[in-house]
Amino acid sequence: MTGRTVAPRLNHPRLLERIAKLAEIGAIEGGGVCRLALTEADKAGRDLVVGWMRELGLQISIDAIGNIVGLRPSRTTGAAARAPVMTGSHIDTVRTGGRYDGNLGVLAGLEVMESLNEAGVETEHPLAVAVFTNEEGARFAPDMMGSLVYVGGLPLEDALATEGIDGTRVDAELRKIGYDGAAPVGAPAVRAFVELHVEQGPVLEREGVTLGAVESLQGISWTEFSVSGVSNHAGTTPMRLRHDAGYLAGATITFVRDLTRELGGDQVGTVGAIEFGPNLVNVIPNRARFTVDLRNTDEDILQEAERRLRGFVAKTAEQEGLTIEQRQLARFEPVLFDAALVARIEEIAGRLGHSVRRLPSGAGHDAQMLARICPAAMIFVPSVGGISHNVREFTDASDIAAGADVLLHILLELAS
Amino acid sequence: MTGRTVAPRLNHPRLLERIAKLAEIGAIEGGGVCRLALTEADKAGRDLVVGWMRELGLQISIDAIGNIVGLRPSRTTGAAARAPVMTGSHIDTVRTGGRYDGNLGVLAGLEVMESLNEAGVETEHPLAVAVFTNEEGARFAPDMMGSLVYVGGLPLEDALATEGIDGTRVDAELRKIGYDGAAPVGAPAVRAFVELHVEQGPVLEREGVTLGAVESLQGISWTEFSVSGVSNHAGTTPMRLRHDAGYLAGATITFVRDLTRELGGDQVGTVGAIEFGPNLVNVIPNRARFTVDLRNTDEDILQEAERRLRGFVAKTAEQEGLTIEQRQLARFEPVLFDAALVARIEEIAGRLGHSVRRLPSGAGHDAQMLARICPAAMIFVPSVGGISHNVREFTDASDIAAGADVLLHILLELAS
Repeated sequence: MTGRTVAPRLNHPRLLERIAKLAEIGAIEGGGVCRLALTEADKAGRDLVVGWMRELGLQISIDAIGNIVGLRPSRTTGAAARAPVMTGSHIDTVRTGGRYDGNLGVLAGLEVMESLNEAGVETEHPLAVAVFTNEEGARFAPDMMGSLVYVGGLPLEDALATEGIDGTRVDAELRKIGYDGAAPVGAPAVRAFVELHVEQGPVLEREGVTLGAVESLQGISWTEFSVSGVSNHAGTTPMRLRHDAGYLAGATITFVRDLTRELGGDQVGTVGAIEFGPNLVNVIPNRARFTVDLRNTDEDILQEAERRLRGFVAKTAEQEGLTIEQRQLARFEPVLFDAALVARIEEIAGRLGHSVRRLPSGAGHDAQMLARICPAAMIFVPSVGGISHNVREFTDASDIAAGADVLLHILLELAS
Repeated sequence: MTGRTVAPRLNHPRLLERIAKLAEIGAIEGGGVCRLALTEADKAGRDLVVGWMRELGLQISIDAIGNIVGLRPSRTTGAAARAPVMTGSHIDTVRTGGRYDGNLGVLAGLEVMESLNEAGVETEHPLAVAVFTNEEGARFAPDMMGSLVYVGGLPLEDALATEGIDGTRVDAELRKIGYDGAAPVGAPAVRAFVELHVEQGPVLEREGVTLGAVESLQGISWTEFSVSGVSNHAGTTPMRLRHDAGYLAGATITFVRDLTRELGGDQVGTVGAIEFGPNLVNVIPNRARFTVDLRNTDEDILQEAERRLRGFVAKTAEQEGLTIEQRQLARFEPVLFDAALVARIEEIAGRLGHSVRRLPSGAGHDAQMLARICPAAMIFVPSVGGISHNVREFTDASDIAAGADVLLHILLELAS
C-alpha cells in the first residue's frame, strides 16, 4: 500500500481461477465437490485459502470453533483500530455439492482484498474476510455452526461436543485437522457484514435479473424422528397387528407434502434423510429414522407447520402402536436484513448497470447469524436452473463478476 | 439297525439341545441369530449340521446350489432303492432372525432319524433330511432359491449368477464356503415332502390350538423400485419445481397401506427396505430405492394388487417428473398342498391328543417348491406373540415336541 492510489478494479479471471483451484480439492464426478466440514478435504481447502490470505498480507486468526478471519488493517492501526467491515461465507460443502455455494463469497472477498492492495487503497475501517466453520450442517447439526458460535447464539462447549452423523465429535475433528484455533470466539467485533452468495433457487434466472438484494431469510426448522416398532414377518403378520416403523416414515413424507400445499405461500418441507432397520424386503421395519426440514419466511406459519407435523406424527404413532423420539437438529427464526444496507446494495447494483431485485432467501446463510450483532445483508447471483447442493450447480462468469463488483463497492462504502 | 425293533420315541430334550447348539452360531443380542445365506456363519451352521448327519450314519450329498441332503437308506438298497420320503427346511436366517425359523424343521428331521436308528426301525422307502440353500432371500433374491432350483423352477446358472445386496455373487460365495457340491441338482427324486415349521404368525396362539395342518401358501410378489429425480436445495426450491425421488417412496408406503385396506381379506403389503441419496437433511433426494412385498392366497387379487401398485407408482412418477426402474425380485403363485396329506397330518395330530386346525401360510416355505414335484404339506407349531424374523421369536418346548411327534408319525406312514 503506497500513497499513490488508483480506482480499484477486480480481476475477474483471477477470481474464477481461485474458484476452479479450490474446486479441485474434494472434486467429485460431474464437476462437483465433496468437502464435508472438518474432514481431510475441508482441511486441504482451508489450507489453500489460508495460504492465499497470507500471500495477500492479511492478518490471520483462527478461533476455537475453527472460524478463520483474514484482516486487512485500516489506515488507523493499534489501539485506535476500528471494528472491521466483514465479508465472507463458508467453504464446506454437502456430500454432493457444487463449487460456488459458500466458496464464491470467501473467494470474492479475497479478490476484493487483492484489488485494494493493487490499487493501494487504504480504508478508514479495517476489512475482513471470514471463513465460517460448518455452514452446511451436512455432517454436524446445526448448520451455520461457526457463525452461530461467533455471534454468541450457541455456547462454544455445546458446539464442540456435537456428535456427527458418522459418530465423530466436533472438537476431536477440529483437533485432527489442526483448526482448533487460539483466537477468542466472536472477535473481532464487526461494523457491518455483507455476503455474496449464489441464489440456489430459480427466481433470478426465471425473471432474467442479474442480482438479488436479499432482504430476508426463511426461518428453518429441522427435526429428526426416531421411531421404534416391532419387526415381524412380512407375510404372516396381519395388517391390523402391525407396528411398522417404516409406515410412519412414509406417512410423514406424504403428510409433509400435503402440509406445504395447505399452508401455501413460500412454505417448503423436505424429508431428505431416511433409514430403516433391519431394512430387509420381507421384514416389517422395527426402526425408522428420518428428518423433516421445514422453512418459511413467516415465523407464525412456520410454528403452525411444526405444530401440525408434531401432531400428525404423534397421532399416527399412537394408531400404529409405535414409540417416537424427536430431536431438534436446528431451529432459526426468519431474519430481516438491515433495510438501509439492502437499499445501498440495490442502489450500487443499479449504478453499475445491473438489473436487480429484492428477494427473500430460501436457504440459511452465515449472514443471518451476523445480523444478530451488526447491520448485515447479502448479494445474490443467479443459479442456472435454480440448481444447488448438486454437482450441476452453476453460475455464469458475467453474473459472478457483477456480484463481486457490487461487493467491492459496498465494502468500500462501509469501510470509509 | 438290528432285527429287533421297538416303537420309536423322540428324545425331545435332545432336539432342544440341537436347536440351542445351532443358535450359538451367528448368535446376536436378545437370543436371536444372524446367519445370512452363504456367509461364514452359514458355513459354520452347515458344518455343524453335516457333522450331526454323519454321526447319524446318513448318506450326505451336496448339490451345485449347496442344498444338503442326508439320506437314511431303506430296507431295499442298491438299484432297487425307492424314492425317499423327505423332510427338512433351511438354516439360513434374516439379519435379525430367530432360532426356530427353518432350523426347527431340519433339526426335528435329524431327531426323527436318530430315534429310528435307536429303535432299529427299517422303512420301505428311504428317508431324507434336506437343508435348502438361501430360503430367506435376505442376501440374495429370490428367496427359497435352493428348493426352487431343486424342483427345476429356476435354472441353476441363473441362481449361481445372482448378485446379492452386498455386491457378491452366489457362485463365488458358494465356492468360498466350500458348499458348491458335486451332486446333480434335483436328486434324489422325492416320494413325498413334509416340513415342520414355526407359524411365524399369531393364529394358532390366539386360538389356543397346538398344531396347524397347512393347506395352502400365499402367493408372493417382491418388486424393487429405483427412482431418479433431481437433488436440489431443500430451502430454495419451490414445491412445484421439485423432482423429489424420496417423495415417491413415501407416497408408495402410504399407498401400499391403503391398498391392503381396500383389497381386504388376507392381502398384506410391506415396504421393508429403503435407501435415499444423497440422504441429507437439507437436500431433496435425487435417488430412492425401496422394495414392496405383496402377498395373497388368491392369485387374481394378488395380480390386481400388483397392477394397482404399478399404476400408482407410474402416475406419481410422471406427476413429480421422476424416472423409475422396477425389478421383480421374486414372484410365486399361491400353492395348494396335497389334500390327502393335509388330512393325514390332521388325523395323526388328533390321534396323538393335540388340538389342530387347518390354516394357510402367510410365509413362503421350501415345501411350496417341493409341492411342484411330489405330494407336500407342512406342520405348524405356534409362534409366541406371532413374532418371527425377530430375535424374540419363540415357541414353547411342549409345542415343539408335539409338532416333531406328528412329523415322526407322518414320515413313518409315508415311508412304509
